Amino acid sequence: MILKKTLNLRKIIRKNKSFFLAYDQGLEHGPTDFNDKNVDPEYIIKIAKEGKFTGLIFQKGIAEKYNKQIKESKIPLIVKLNGKTNLVKGDPVSKQLCTVEEAKELGATAVGYTIYIGSIHEEEMFQEFENIQRQAHKKGLPIICWIYPRGKGTKGIKEKDLMAYSTRVGLELGADIIKIHPTGIKRDLEWAIKSAGKTRVVIAGGGKKNEKTLLKEIEEAMEVGCSGLAIGRNIWQNKDPIKLTNKIKKIIWNKKKK
Amino acid sequence: MILKKTLNLRKIIRKNKSFFLAYDQGLEHGPTDFNDKNVDPEYIIKIAKEGKFTGLIFQKGIAEKYNKQIKESKIPLIVKLNGKTNLVKGDPVSKQLCTVEEAKELGATAVGYTIYIGSIHEEEMFQEFENIQRQAHKKGLPIICWIYPRGKGTKGIKEKDLMAYSTRVGLELGADIIKIHPTGIKRDLEWAIKSAGKTRVVIAGGGKKNEKTLLKEIEEAMEVGCSGLAIGRNIWQNKDPIKLTNKIKKIIWNKKKK
Amino acid sequence: MILKKTLNLRKIIRKNKSFFLAYDQGLEHGPTDFNDKNVDPEYIIKIAKEGKFTGLIFQKGIAEKYNKQIKESKIPLIVKLNGKTNLVKGDPVSKQLCTVEEAKELGATAVGYTIYIGSIHEEEMFQEFENIQRQAHKKGLPIICWIYPRGKGTKGIKEKDLMAYSTRVGLELGADIIKIHPTGIKRDLEWAIKSAGKTRVVIAGGGKKNEKTLLKEIEEAMEVGCSGLAIGRNIWQNKDPIKLTNKIKKIIWNKKKK
Amino acid sequence: MILKKTLNLRKIIRKNKSFFLAYDQGLEHGPTDFNDKNVDPEYIIKIAKEGKFTGLIFQKGIAEKYNKQIKESKIPLIVKLNGKTNLVKGDPVSKQLCTVEEAKELGATAVGYTIYIGSIHEEEMFQEFENIQRQAHKKGLPIICWIYPRGKGTKGIKEKDLMAYSTRVGLELGADIIKIHPTGIKRDLEWAIKSAGKTRVVIAGGGKKNEKTLLKEIEEAMEVGCSGLAIGRNIWQNKDPIKLTNKIKKIIWNKKKK
Amino acid sequence: MILKKTLNLRKIIRKNKSFFLAYDQGLEHGPTDFNDKNVDPEYIIKIAKEGKFTGLIFQKGIAEKYNKQIKESKIPLIVKLNGKTNLVKGDPVSKQLCTVEEAKELGATAVGYTIYIGSIHEEEMFQEFENIQRQAHKKGLPIICWIYPRGKGTKGIKEKDLMAYSTRVGLELGADIIKIHPTGIKRDLEWAIKSAGKTRVVIAGGGKKNEKTLLKEIEEAMEVGCSGLAIGRNIWQNKDPIKLTNKIKKIIWNKKKK
Repeated sequence: MILKKTLNLRKIIRKNKSFFLAYDQGLEHGPTDFNDKNVDPEYIIKIAKEGKFTGLIFQKGIAEKYNKQIKESKIPLIVKLNGKTNLVKGDPVSKQLCTVEEAKELGATAVGYTIYIGSIHEEEMFQEFENIQRQAHKKGLPIICWIYPRGKGTKGIKEKDLMAYSTRVGLELGADIIKIHPTGIKRDLEWAIKSAGKTRVVIAGGGKKNEKTLLKEIEEAMEVGCSGLAIGRNIWQNKDPIKLTNKIKKIIWNKKKK
Repeated sequence: MILKKTLNLRKIIRKNKSFFLAYDQGLEHGPTDFNDKNVDPEYIIKIAKEGKFTGLIFQKGIAEKYNKQIKESKIPLIVKLNGKTNLVKGDPVSKQLCTVEEAKELGATAVGYTIYIGSIHEEEMFQEFENIQRQAHKKGLPIICWIYPRGKGTKGIKEKDLMAYSTRVGLELGADIIKIHPTGIKRDLEWAIKSAGKTRVVIAGGGKKNEKTLLKEIEEAMEVGCSGLAIGRNIWQNKDPIKLTNKIKKIIWNKKKK
Repeated sequence: MILKKTLNLRKIIRKNKSFFLAYDQGLEHGPTDFNDKNVDPEYIIKIAKEGKFTGLIFQKGIAEKYNKQIKESKIPLIVKLNGKTNLVKGDPVSKQLCTVEEAKELGATAVGYTIYIGSIHEEEMFQEFENIQRQAHKKGLPIICWIYPRGKGTKGIKEKDLMAYSTRVGLELGADIIKIHPTGIKRDLEWAIKSAGKTRVVIAGGGKKNEKTLLKEIEEAMEVGCSGLAIGRNIWQNKDPIKLTNKIKKIIWNKKKK
Repeated sequence: MILKKTLNLRKIIRKNKSFFLAYDQGLEHGPTDFNDKNVDPEYIIKIAKEGKFTGLIFQKGIAEKYNKQIKESKIPLIVKLNGKTNLVKGDPVSKQLCTVEEAKELGATAVGYTIYIGSIHEEEMFQEFENIQRQAHKKGLPIICWIYPRGKGTKGIKEKDLMAYSTRVGLELGADIIKIHPTGIKRDLEWAIKSAGKTRVVIAGGGKKNEKTLLKEIEEAMEVGCSGLAIGRNIWQNKDPIKLTNKIKKIIWNKKKK
Repeated sequence: MILKKTLNLRKIIRKNKSFFLAYDQGLEHGPTDFNDKNVDPEYIIKIAKEGKFTGLIFQKGIAEKYNKQIKESKIPLIVKLNGKTNLVKGDPVSKQLCTVEEAKELGATAVGYTIYIGSIHEEEMFQEFENIQRQAHKKGLPIICWIYPRGKGTKGIKEKDLMAYSTRVGLELGADIIKIHPTGIKRDLEWAIKSAGKTRVVIAGGGKKNEKTLLKEIEEAMEVGCSGLAIGRNIWQNKDPIKLTNKIKKIIWNKKKK
């Protein structure tokens, strides 16, 4: 469908950049990423609110049970529409667990979906994404696509080529924002961002990192046209999440625009 | 969908706790669990009534054929929506055998569904659950999710981690009550209950046990915030089911609230 | 759905017993069971009429092409809704070949469906049955469930346990009448019938047998609460089918009621 | 559904016999069966017209692109609803490639469908056929079923038994006309035709044959109650197709009726 | 459905020939085919406009994000409805990623779909194509079918036979235009084009080639009745794409008509 002016992309972008707080790890990894504090979704909502993130990423269950708190925070809700545990081995597949309509009813400003390119189940995720993309755009919701190269099909292929393939797939399939794990090499990221054309690219924070490394990575990404960040563990596993948040925001909104 | 005030969770909770009589073993194990008395659903309904359980769990077939007796007992009916025999080996999958609408027509106050996380069929059950959850909430019915770690994906993973992963999956997927098999270690159960956030956790009674062991298990569970019990064989295989029922009720409703 | 008073179970029951003439072997085994006479459905309809059976079991194709003759016979039509050839090996699966609506249009008084418990395809048949059961009850049609233990899942399990599991599955899934192959041991059948609760159990005639053996089997079955018979080859392969039919009817309607 | 008087079977039958010109080989075998003349569908339509066949069998693509010529010929159009290439090996499966509604819109007087009994995919074709049969009858269109024994399930079974099983399956599933490859033995064909009950049986011409053999085969078939022929290569690969056509017509319409 | 006069085939044909600019390589191969210039869809649109192509082929994502530029170019948009990455190995399958309705809303003048004959997934693509073909014709949109022989089923079969089988499949399935990779032998292409009957055949440009070879290939193709070209890399990887475009146009529109 033709991209309407009413596509609410602006609601999850501030001065042309995005900064999302991701909290879908409970399903993806189990509670092993959590401690007594951050196991509680209310703690995460509090960080999102204080840190003025441009979006907060939850699975439907949390979006539903903590709906009141999310609404009170006024942080735009992004509902992740698919997911899986990390128990099942082999080429990954992550299936739809929430409809676009339901996400809308929960107050979502955008929806998210993960595709594992290279997995033998790639086609199943392509088709679910395709459906969701159409439905989301019909309702004026932007769709963020997590694209991670995984499985047998990725063997023997250079990381940088997989990263550029990821972002290109996002463009060709109609994502509005693509989330990737950067390889860490600036020039490669630049090419991946170029390959995405008009589709925006945000980088994942990934597992907890040395703060310096993280900030440098973000800085370089912003320099080559990255549209922002979707970060989770590095923030809510941090002892002082707001302090780090502020450091990152400085980098995001002070570098040259894409 | 946003959790409505009309979600009839209160109907299967008494003073913040639940106490369900489970009788889905006929399908899950065959009649080997039964004797001449308890093979008869009417005997089970009688126990539920005298014991004032907060819910009685049946498959559709029994809920339909014994509908009059169930209604007369005034015990809330919980229809289990999926099931399988124990004949087929390999990674388990349990498919939907009754619709939410049908359960509602049968007079159900809540519905139940089993997910085997770690099974290679995990995604199929996730998707069926997702659909049922939405439909149930639309009709104001709470959904109870049996979550059992099973199959290849669970190998080499610690029992306590699997238990906490189970309850977290329940929260992320939008269950209202999660039923798990406790590992028996209090501290582990506490973490699992915490991982479930606002979703309630009840423990399964499991196979017939020494009464002392059973009561201690329940006592400890209630101390760490457990929301109650879903028990079957330990009750209806007992020579004096009401006597044991009363002992358990004392424990459930006299311990500190979650 | 709640069992309505309008469920037309009484139409295929006479004085609390059923006596069905089965003729689905053409699809299940090919014409090898037939001779020049009984290969012709009109011959079967004639037997059913003269023998005053309480039901006549056909696949859709015969029910459609011989509809006039069936109606003229006034014997209640039972349309078998699934079927397969015996050519394909491995764990059996039998899929739906006629809708409930179509059966109704053909004048069916009841519908039938076969489930092979223990087959790796068990879940597929469970789900088709579930759908058919609901639709049939909505239209006031009773559903008869053939339940046969087959496939890898049945290995190493005692025949009597498989028989009792079969009837229990029929109850749990919501069948109105269950058709099983009896093991031949009276006490085992009694337990199987008990396990079926309020669901009726009829026994299959099976392959052609010595008449004495057959009659004794029926007699014993009726003594332990069996609700009747679904018989085929033993009748229509017999030189004098009406004579045998009358002998069986005597046994069915003269023994003590369930 | 009850066979209506309006079922247009008479439109593809002349004096109780059928004579169809088959031209679905382009999809089933590729153009290797063709030469410069018969590669052209217009040539085939011309033969059908001059030869006054009672039906002309095409896939949807040809039925659509040559619709004008087909209509002008006034030969009844039979649209073959499934098909496959011969490239893929293993147990065959042929899936639906045209809907009944579409066939009707193209002006079809009847529809056709191929089932490979004995293939591990038998059930898939049974279910597609079942659906098509119902839809076709609802629209008053007869359905012709190609039934060929193929795949693992047919190993070690006598050809004559497979042939009789084929025709019986056609009856049980509700076909109006069954097309089989005859074994060439008269007595076997007679039994197969008897096994089909009220369903008509036509024989395939098969690969190009010596004319004498072909005519003798047809003659014998008509003697044992065969309802006609569906022939392709033997006609349109012939140098003088009309001459052979006339010889066959003489045989078909001069032998004793079924 | 009967081919309507309203089928907009004329919109993508000029003086009986077609000349399409293909740009679906981003999804099919990743951005490895691209450089800093041609990675940008706007550059491609510019070439299409200046070169006056009769169609421009995009996936939905690009058709949506660059819709304004496409419309301004006035080059007819052809939306490719299926696609896959080249990461996953084994017999290929390419699934639908955009609906016909969506393509129409994006302003498409025609739609495209790829079938890999000989792949074990052939039937899946046949069925998706069948659906799309019907929907496209209902909306007056022509459908172009990429047909490439691939996978296990093609082993040991001559290239020329596979090519002719490809075009025949296109005719039988109802494509309006078939796109093939020519073998390079004129006489073989002539037979393939004949096998397609009334369905048009265009050839793919394939990977970048020596200009002389390319032009000779096109010249020969046009001589044997080819309906035109769908070319990508040879154009947009060329330093002077318009110069080459003009050379090709001369060949296409100066040779004898089909």
